Amino acid sequence: MQKRLKVLQYGLGSMGSKMVELVLKKEGLELVGAVVRKEKAGKDIGDILGWNKKLGIKGYTERDAFESLGADVMLHAAVSYVTDVWKQISGAVRAGINVITIAEEMGYPFVKYPSLCNEMDNSARKHEVSILGSGINPGFAMDYLPLALTGIVHSVTSIKVTRLVDFSPFGPAIQKNIGVGLTENQFRRGIIEGSLPGHIGLLESAHMTAHALGWKLDRTKETKTPVISNKPIKVPGYITVQTGKVSGFDQKLSCYEKGKLRIVLEELGRVDPEIDYKNTIMINGKPNIVECMSVPTGKLTTTAHAVNLIPVVYNAKPGLLTMLDLPVAPALKDK
Amino acid sequence: MQKRLKVLQYGLGSMGSKMVELVLKKEGLELVGAVVRKEKAGKDIGDILGWNKKLGIKGYTERDAFESLGADVMLHAAVSYVTDVWKQISGAVRAGINVITIAEEMGYPFVKYPSLCNEMDNSARKHEVSILGSGINPGFAMDYLPLALTGIVHSVTSIKVTRLVDFSPFGPAIQKNIGVGLTENQFRRGIIEGSLPGHIGLLESAHMTAHALGWKLDRTKETKTPVISNKPIKVPGYITVQTGKVSGFDQKLSCYEKGKLRIVLEELGRVDPEIDYKNTIMINGKPNIVECMSVPTGKLTTTAHAVNLIPVVYNAKPGLLTMLDLPVAPALKDK
Repeated sequence: MQKRLKVLQYGLGSMGSKMVELVLKKEGLELVGAVVRKEKAGKDIGDILGWNKKLGIKGYTERDAFESLGADVMLHAAVSYVTDVWKQISGAVRAGINVITIAEEMGYPFVKYPSLCNEMDNSARKHEVSILGSGINPGFAMDYLPLALTGIVHSVTSIKVTRLVDFSPFGPAIQKNIGVGLTENQFRRGIIEGSLPGHIGLLESAHMTAHALGWKLDRTKETKTPVISNKPIKVPGYITVQTGKVSGFDQKLSCYEKGKLRIVLEELGRVDPEIDYKNTIMINGKPNIVECMSVPTGKLTTTAHAVNLIPVVYNAKPGLLTMLDLPVAPALKDK
Repeated sequence: MQKRLKVLQYGLGSMGSKMVELVLKKEGLELVGAVVRKEKAGKDIGDILGWNKKLGIKGYTERDAFESLGADVMLHAAVSYVTDVWKQISGAVRAGINVITIAEEMGYPFVKYPSLCNEMDNSARKHEVSILGSGINPGFAMDYLPLALTGIVHSVTSIKVTRLVDFSPFGPAIQKNIGVGLTENQFRRGIIEGSLPGHIGLLESAHMTAHALGWKLDRTKETKTPVISNKPIKVPGYITVQTGKVSGFDQKLSCYEKGKLRIVLEELGRVDPEIDYKNTIMINGKPNIVECMSVPTGKLTTTAHAVNLIPVVYNAKPGLLTMLDLPVAPALKDK
């Protein structure tokens, strides 16, 4: 990387604060500010994050951040759904700032939001910037990595990815999303009523995979079932889940093409620190490939991936992109 | 892929014939011919390969193949070393044909052949085509895949890749290269005298990895030791290795930066059909990642990778490229 890239952070929550930490460590990146709520604008990011040290870099309102800092790339970690994302990032795009968002639905938004994607793509091209949605999942574990593995086989008939994920480091908000600590009935009601979205992104990963392999999915089925704890589980920094209460979930998406099962994605979320978390990919084809990876927490991997993607997104062609459009993004060098 | 791509095959040996088989199966690809020795020019490729069926596609001399077939991409599988490759492919480049070669040294040729790389790059740009060296290794297992995995970690201090590889399907030529069936003394003499090159490409994978991660390697050390069989091993379609004779090799490359061990690549070649062949990657950093993959034979994966790369290489920017320049290349759809 030649040019030192100016990075703007949007969102200083559990993910955003990790991104700030990482941007500060990387050679070739310069943190220029963060988008914060009006009442925090003008404060030092170190103070906002409660780090007990000043960074000499401040929080700004959206408009000030987009228009006064000359940012090259904005990292966005604030919401999960495409419509909410576009409200927050459209000003940055119009100001000529490339955007990397970890919003799950942005991993492959074309199927759910065709016309909004058109609008995002047009705006990005007009202002000569790229927009990318990517994290560990969607963006790597269940789509990009399996697709890379299909590149070394003669043909593929189906793909199954099982991801056993540690949700304990995601903070209370995400644990609320997945129903940790609830009774089984409360969980099932939450699923029906929509108050427990569970993991967002399985459908996006499946659509990216199908698109890349030329599969036309005509039926998808997603199920979410609770995991009930058979022992008390102390979740670090959060609550203790009592025996008999929900300590995780099994979420499974099955995708078919003309009656043929093509893609199975299983997200098995847990908060038990004693589990050996891992990611398994099975490529069924000629030949088969079985791949297994230890999975460090999604918080570390999502933030790392977003930050390591900065140079390739900055250098990419303008438009609304996916991981399929970009070259490999290895870890950036530390200062 | 919009356009149907015309593919020319250079080399019809063990690898080349697999490539032909695969190109014929893929939607969007059309085999237009093969470069063969003068005495075979004009013959049907099916006859040349002894397939007992005609393909209606012929063998040509270099000049005829390059200039009369309108090929978009040439697959090259004939030699291992950069200088030999350039002699064989330069005419194709001048004729405006993109080239994908599985020659091991072409995986990352810049360190050993800086001025020849300049020449190749200039010629490719002048004629607006791309040249890529890639197979399973170099090109995937020991460089591209580990680098992709570093993208999801905060920082990397070192990488170790151990690849236990089944060499039995590579045919007599490769088995001769690695010394199968020799006595231990013959093997050791062969290493010293240079008649047993072993696996070619560890250095190329290491240089690609170091370049991508910003490491400046200042010391590399490579060792090759024989593996002696403790039982007779029947190698399918080849010889039986007697007890006490060489049935494989351990090849290890260690790379340092300022005294720090950065990269360890181990290629453990065997011809025993009973071994559970696999590929293990350890990314040491924050956090660590351990990845393990079942390894189908290198013959299948190398040929698959070369063929699946055809569209992305065709669409790439002109020049002498590496896997670092290209988007992910998933399996192409079968007809």
